[in-house]
Amino acid sequence: MYLWNEYIIKMEFTIRQIATMLGGQVQGDEHAKINMVAKIQDAKPGQIAFLANPKYESFIYTTQATAVIVNKDFQPKKEINATLILVDNPYTSFTALLEEYHKFVTFQKVGIEQPSFIGDNSKTGANIYRAAFSYIGSDCTIGDNVKIYPHVYIGDNVKIGSNTILHANVKLYSGTSVGNNCEIHSGTVIGSDGFGFAPQKDGTYKTIPQLGNVMIEDNVSIGANTVIDCATMLGDSTIIHSGVKLDNLIQIAHNVEVGKNTVIAAQVGVSGSSKIGDNCVIAGQVGISGHIVIANNTIVGGKAGVNKTVKTEGQKLMGEIAFDLKDYFKSYVLFRKLPLLDDRLRELEKKINGHSNGNGAN
Amino acid sequence: MYLWNEYIIKMEFTIRQIATMLGGQVQGDEHAKINMVAKIQDAKPGQIAFLANPKYESFIYTTQATAVIVNKDFQPKKEINATLILVDNPYTSFTALLEEYHKFVTFQKVGIEQPSFIGDNSKTGANIYRAAFSYIGSDCTIGDNVKIYPHVYIGDNVKIGSNTILHANVKLYSGTSVGNNCEIHSGTVIGSDGFGFAPQKDGTYKTIPQLGNVMIEDNVSIGANTVIDCATMLGDSTIIHSGVKLDNLIQIAHNVEVGKNTVIAAQVGVSGSSKIGDNCVIAGQVGISGHIVIANNTIVGGKAGVNKTVKTEGQKLMGEIAFDLKDYFKSYVLFRKLPLLDDRLRELEKKINGHSNGNGAN
Amino acid sequence: MYLWNEYIIKMEFTIRQIATMLGGQVQGDEHAKINMVAKIQDAKPGQIAFLANPKYESFIYTTQATAVIVNKDFQPKKEINATLILVDNPYTSFTALLEEYHKFVTFQKVGIEQPSFIGDNSKTGANIYRAAFSYIGSDCTIGDNVKIYPHVYIGDNVKIGSNTILHANVKLYSGTSVGNNCEIHSGTVIGSDGFGFAPQKDGTYKTIPQLGNVMIEDNVSIGANTVIDCATMLGDSTIIHSGVKLDNLIQIAHNVEVGKNTVIAAQVGVSGSSKIGDNCVIAGQVGISGHIVIANNTIVGGKAGVNKTVKTEGQKLMGEIAFDLKDYFKSYVLFRKLPLLDDRLRELEKKINGHSNGNGAN
Repeated sequence: MYLWNEYIIKMEFTIRQIATMLGGQVQGDEHAKINMVAKIQDAKPGQIAFLANPKYESFIYTTQATAVIVNKDFQPKKEINATLILVDNPYTSFTALLEEYHKFVTFQKVGIEQPSFIGDNSKTGANIYRAAFSYIGSDCTIGDNVKIYPHVYIGDNVKIGSNTILHANVKLYSGTSVGNNCEIHSGTVIGSDGFGFAPQKDGTYKTIPQLGNVMIEDNVSIGANTVIDCATMLGDSTIIHSGVKLDNLIQIAHNVEVGKNTVIAAQVGVSGSSKIGDNCVIAGQVGISGHIVIANNTIVGGKAGVNKTVKTEGQKLMGEIAFDLKDYFKSYVLFRKLPLLDDRLRELEKKINGHSNGNGAN
Repeated sequence: MYLWNEYIIKMEFTIRQIATMLGGQVQGDEHAKINMVAKIQDAKPGQIAFLANPKYESFIYTTQATAVIVNKDFQPKKEINATLILVDNPYTSFTALLEEYHKFVTFQKVGIEQPSFIGDNSKTGANIYRAAFSYIGSDCTIGDNVKIYPHVYIGDNVKIGSNTILHANVKLYSGTSVGNNCEIHSGTVIGSDGFGFAPQKDGTYKTIPQLGNVMIEDNVSIGANTVIDCATMLGDSTIIHSGVKLDNLIQIAHNVEVGKNTVIAAQVGVSGSSKIGDNCVIAGQVGISGHIVIANNTIVGGKAGVNKTVKTEGQKLMGEIAFDLKDYFKSYVLFRKLPLLDDRLRELEKKINGHSNGNGAN
Repeated sequence: MYLWNEYIIKMEFTIRQIATMLGGQVQGDEHAKINMVAKIQDAKPGQIAFLANPKYESFIYTTQATAVIVNKDFQPKKEINATLILVDNPYTSFTALLEEYHKFVTFQKVGIEQPSFIGDNSKTGANIYRAAFSYIGSDCTIGDNVKIYPHVYIGDNVKIGSNTILHANVKLYSGTSVGNNCEIHSGTVIGSDGFGFAPQKDGTYKTIPQLGNVMIEDNVSIGANTVIDCATMLGDSTIIHSGVKLDNLIQIAHNVEVGKNTVIAAQVGVSGSSKIGDNCVIAGQVGISGHIVIANNTIVGGKAGVNKTVKTEGQKLMGEIAFDLKDYFKSYVLFRKLPLLDDRLRELEKKINGHSNGNGAN
């Protein structure tokens, strides 16, 4: 099933290099080469594993791993083939290694594959990756270490900071601005037209020109197939502030502002011109009406509909027309018991009136 | 923050040309060149602004705008550097100018970028834009002024009318038909297979071949990452009638028909074979069941679920299983008060029976 | 309206070949060539139709179809121009022909269009289609008869079985594994990062590296613009088991497992680490919380929210916090009648207390 363990990234470090990074000491061949991280029970030659839980100690005597990260106090009971790296906390060290590994994998692509397209007057920084079939329009400014995967579309006059990753097929409309250290996943669209149509007397609609842009600040992560529309007026922006994390398939309408470090789960929809505060948490499939303001630190439960401004910070909301989460659960418990409530009411009616006015659930 | 104001479209008109378009009179240098619209307080040389609200009058004496649109009765109190265009209604004129500007920006792309792909026997009209990495299959007919952005996929035997814009990465499956003056935003998929699977005795499903197509009439706008499936039977179509406006991330299933000038907001899902009437308004995240008919002029509130045919025209609906919107709000207010209702019922029960049958919300 | 009937696939068979496939007998010119299926009333020369319902018999005497499939007992009342294929059950035969036709259309694309991209050490099988602008990374293994449409992105180390179709612009992140006989529609993203962020003391979030992959077994169909995230840990997989059918715009989070032959409708969201059993049916816009297990043969109604483990197999669930579907409908009927319930309660209160404690719906 898990054949994917065979997936070999062409990273190659000596054990010496890894030990130095982790501040650990080497016992064994420090020149051996490592090209992948793995679990101790699955590891193969060329891979590095860790031993933190004593429960797994037996594996260290049989593992094919070239290196194992262990606690500096670890006392082997048998012979070990693997080189050891002795550290204070093997789990923390392994996690640090995973992060380095991830960064390595993420940023390993460098250079320009062909065919790729770049328009007039566009500038790109150092260590850039421009994949085959990527498209960059005219008058763009793109920072250092930016990774532009295949089929990415970047319109004209787009600005992108450094260390930002655009996965395959991200689309940035003309005029979009993206900060530093952002990651945007495949299929996401930034800067499409806001949904603005003026009803006419004959029942048709006239398109209201959408002339603003989208501005994404630093350290923002955006999932796959999400859509962020541009602002309506020239000079205005739909703004995603720094540190925001957006999941997949989210709709952010024109002129919306999402505050710093706010987290929004998959399939949420935010309607036009609403402003979400800082450090909010919005669960999956929530809908937020247009032209409202949501205070900082608001938590909105899954599937809720928020249809008016939330003034007090730190509230937890839930429900199709959202209100206090605890109260919602109380009401919902009774919603489930409505047939019983109706029965009880009928019984009283019979006692008092001699008959019931209810006509029940069926 | 709003650095995007520096975004310069390479449009260039003389003030004379703009004044003629607006039916206004020029005071000053009519040969000066204009390349952008801007707010009067932000405008720079080469830009045109407007003054409608007297509150902003002071800016006209300091603006760097090359031209300002003003009311024909405007009496300057100091010297003005900008050339003036005198019109009846500066706001209306500026809006008209914005529309022209938008049209200009939208249709300015012309010509064929390379590499792009076009199959056998496909014909394209005048003033077409075929971007790099756009793909057109065989036997297609594409009208005049059509704009095909990068990574657009057009299958075989597709028909597209004139003045239609396909933004980056729109996908039209083989056999799709799109009318005149349509605009389809990035990532939208037209003509994918309907979700048709016949259950078999062993628990597996057999795929029902999806052989129909999608037909989109004139003046239709479709947002980003929306999906419209093809009809099931050969010769049948999923139909989006003229003037329809669809937002982002909408699901339109096989054999659906959306009536003229109907507006559907983001993340709505319409199940197979349902027919939505003309001039309806469907709010965000609504779900519509399969095989139902929705009368003309129906309004459906956000997150509602419509699970049966709506016969009477002009109704407003709301709720998880939608019913009259006003009644829904009355019920929802009482849903929030269910714990109070339960308390009141218990109190009566105690008075009449000496004890309560309720077990409350907790 | 249905001009699409003019859509001609360049399939060409003799009537003899078709009759052999259907096990039927030919009456007329068995060498005539057929290039399309059509309705008897619409058919043109070169097309084949069928007559099953006697109601349509008159058309067989006027049809321009080159061939008509009829019951072996059919007795013509007038002269017929078309060649006849006599079979036991014309409808069944026509359906079989449609399926062959669909298979033919689907698999007719063969060869490599240019420009297309393939990285080092990637192997592809026989009869493959690699469209223009398709991208295949390094170290991939791709089976026989695989169809890779334009703008498909396949990362590094991806495995794809035989007879699998990737429609235009499908994106498979590095390390993804797809089985045999799968079909994935346009714009779908497989293997994007799970939504994992660890809150820090200063209110920001740290990205948790997503190092696992997605594994899709055999006979899986996936609609358009759906997203399936990769597993978090190296060596783990988000798994879509064999025979699963996923519709459009679905969100499948990291580490989710979807059991065999389960069917999931459009716009459903499944949160991280949840396991859905075999042969379940999940209706549109359902939300499923994280870290729960759903038993085999569970049916979940549209828009429901499932927030806890479902242990008993074969249940039907519904509601914002899902419970038994029949009970939900009973409660919902009374939800609609809450204003009446409130009125009845007030009336009793007045009788017993001389006044009501209720303050009604308004």
